[in-house]
This record gives sequence, C-alpha cells and structure tokens, in this order.
Amino acid sequence: MPEIRQIRVLENILKANDYMAQRLRADWSAAGTFVVNLLSSPGSGKTTLLEATLPRLMKDYRVGVLEGDLETERDAQRIRALGIPVLQITTGGTCHLESHMIEQAWDSLKAEGPFDFLFIENVGNLVCPSSYDLGEHLRVVLLSVPEGDDKPAKYPKAFRTSQALLITKSDLIDYFDFSVDDAVSDARDLRPDIAEFRVSAKTGAGLEDWLDYLLQRRAASESVSGTR
Amino acid sequence: MPEIRQIRVLENILKANDYMAQRLRADWSAAGTFVVNLLSSPGSGKTTLLEATLPRLMKDYRVGVLEGDLETERDAQRIRALGIPVLQITTGGTCHLESHMIEQAWDSLKAEGPFDFLFIENVGNLVCPSSYDLGEHLRVVLLSVPEGDDKPAKYPKAFRTSQALLITKSDLIDYFDFSVDDAVSDARDLRPDIAEFRVSAKTGAGLEDWLDYLLQRRAASESVSGTR
Repeated sequence: MPEIRQIRVLENILKANDYMAQRLRADWSAAGTFVVNLLSSPGSGKTTLLEATLPRLMKDYRVGVLEGDLETERDAQRIRALGIPVLQITTGGTCHLESHMIEQAWDSLKAEGPFDFLFIENVGNLVCPSSYDLGEHLRVVLLSVPEGDDKPAKYPKAFRTSQALLITKSDLIDYFDFSVDDAVSDARDLRPDIAEFRVSAKTGAGLEDWLDYLLQRRAASESVSGTR
Repeated sequence: MPEIRQIRVLENILKANDYMAQRLRADWSAAGTFVVNLLSSPGSGKTTLLEATLPRLMKDYRVGVLEGDLETERDAQRIRALGIPVLQITTGGTCHLESHMIEQAWDSLKAEGPFDFLFIENVGNLVCPSSYDLGEHLRVVLLSVPEGDDKPAKYPKAFRTSQALLITKSDLIDYFDFSVDDAVSDARDLRPDIAEFRVSAKTGAGLEDWLDYLLQRRAASESVSGTR
C-alpha cells in the first residue's frame, strides 16, 4: 500500500528535520537570536504583518528575515525595501520549509548579523508547515478575518503547535460573519495556553500588544538560556 | 538524502493515484456524471460558492458533493442543509484528497444517485492538491480578493493545472489593493486558455456566467464521450 510507505519515509524525514532543528535552536539561543516562525494560509497577511512590525522593532533591535515561498522573490523584495537583511528560500514544489533549508539560508544570512530577532515566514499553507520544527523559539499562526472562524477546528495542528494566534485584518470584523470568540475558543480547545492578539496592519490596531509580547518572549527566552 | 527518497515514493504514489483517477473518470463519463474538483486556500469560499451554485443547479440537474477536510463535518452539514446528497471525507493529517479516498467515498455516495454533477471540495490548500488528479472533468481554482493578486505567481501549479479561475469575494474589490488584471495576467502566463470569472456569493454577481460555463463544459464533455 503506497500510503503506508509514505508514512514510514515521512517519519524518517521528520526525525532528521527535528534533529537539525534542535541544533539550530541551540545555536540561536547561544547567540541571543530569538527566532519566530510565522504560519498561515496564503494571503493571511504574514508579509504585511512583518512590514508593520519590523520598522517598530528595528529602532532598538537588529532584525533579519528568511522568506519561504514556492516561487518568486516578491516577499523578500518587500522586506528588503525596509532596509532589513532578508533571504528568499524558494522551495520549488515543496509545500513547507524544512530545517535543512533554514540551515542553508541561515549560513548565508548570518554574515549580515548578528541579529536579536530572526523572523521566518513559512510557505502559505495551513497544513504541512505545522509538522516541521525549524528550530524557532516561538511559533505564531495567523488567521485572517476573511478566512472564517472555523479554521482552528478544521486545521487543528497549526493551532495546536503554535504558542500565539494572531487574528489579522481585524479592521474587517464588521464586514464578515466572523466570531472571534468561536475562533479563540476552538483554538483553546486545542491549546489552552495559546496567546491571542487581534491586529490590523492597515489601522495599526493591536500592534503594540503584539510587539510587547515579542519582547517579553525574547526576554523570557534569554533568562532561561542564560546567554548574553 | 531523505529528500531523494521522498521524491521516489511520491512518484509511485502519484502513478497509483493517476491510474485510479483515470478509471474513475471513465466510469463517471460512462454514467453521464460531470465531475468538478474545487481547489483553493483555506477560507477562499469553496463551500460558500457551492451554497450559492447548487440550489440554482438543482432545479434542472441531480447534484452530489464530496467534501474534503482534515477534520470536522462542518462543510458537509452546510451542504446537507440544502437537501443535497453529500459525504464528508476527513483525511486526518493528509493535506489533500487522493483518488483512492474519492473511490471509497463515491462507493457510498453513488447509491443516492444517479448524478448529473458531482462536486469535490478539496482540502483548503493551494499547494498539495494540485498534484493529485481525482478523475475530475474540470478543475477550478478559487482565489479570493482578500488573499491578494500575487497568488498565481507564488503558487503556480494550482493555476497551471486548472481550467478555470474563479475570483471570489469580488464584492470586496474596492476595499483591497487587488488588481484583477495582474492576477489574471499571471495566471494566463501559466495557462493561456484558463477561463476566468469574478463572482460574489454575497451579492450574486457573476454567478450566472459561472453556471453557464458549468453547463457548457458538461455538454461538451457529453458530446465527446458520446454517452447518454
């Protein structure tokens, strides 16, 4: 049966992926680089969130970005326009980033460091990326209001494996039949301690809380690892 | 190298998938059932499109639906509420539908037929489903306005393998910085003959053209196969 063979190989790939991810995380922790992995459907606003977040963060912190896409360098170009070191990973057909891709890209990007924050924008896909640890310290899933409040229940792993849920395009909340309570309640059924933010890159709403959270998480991670 | 092994197994799975898909398509053609496979990101409005399309189609045609999701029966419940025979396929973790899943589900659903149209709503994912022929006669990719006009360039295979592109939630076009021309031009670079429709399930705009297209495609398919 083809399915059974697929699962067996996948387990090996996942083990190899996790091994390399742990090594990356240890290296980043030692260097004081706090790494955030952004997950979502295509078009939920990952790049737009970075465009709104990074200029505020850059005032006090050194920031780098790794962009993941099947094709095109469009997202990297948008980040580079902000004057931020960035590298685009184009996966060809692969539907997610894996830690060996990150290691390769990081090898190139780190010459432009050191970095206090590294953001990884995963391939737009609410399914596959959730199975791949990239060595990040913080995984954040974005859910945009136009997508609908039923996504946590329908795509559980992305929400179960994320420490924070960002409800994006929150300026559209009155236009859509989207219940924040339902979305958050379904996400909390999967992960009771998930942090939740409602943000609009368009109006700026919620961005201060999101930034505070990033700084708190970075500070907590430093005090645990004891570096710097 | 894990990647190479993954590709080899994937090729075998794809061959098995295509073999079964061809058999399904032949059976459906012989029975006069025209099959449509709907692909898109999560939350692009596949179920909402079906809710707007099927009541119009049901006046003159017998319609069935297969719903694909990782988890939950929510979409099938929405379709069943219209009085349409429907079966939910929950894939567990699998990020796409495969033809063996369709064959199993069809074995159950066909007792409620015969059907003139069968709609398959794939798992919400703009990457993986595009690699799996399900035996459909027509593949349709949905791109919702809030997702952004850059998606054809960034997720090319979904657009290259689809005969029709539906730009959904078109009532939001003034609210977003979305260029229909850019999206369609990028899609036509990938597939010059792709048909294009702009629809809004909310306002009803564009639905008549989309229905006419479905009927034309079904009629063309019948005259080729010579059945019925």
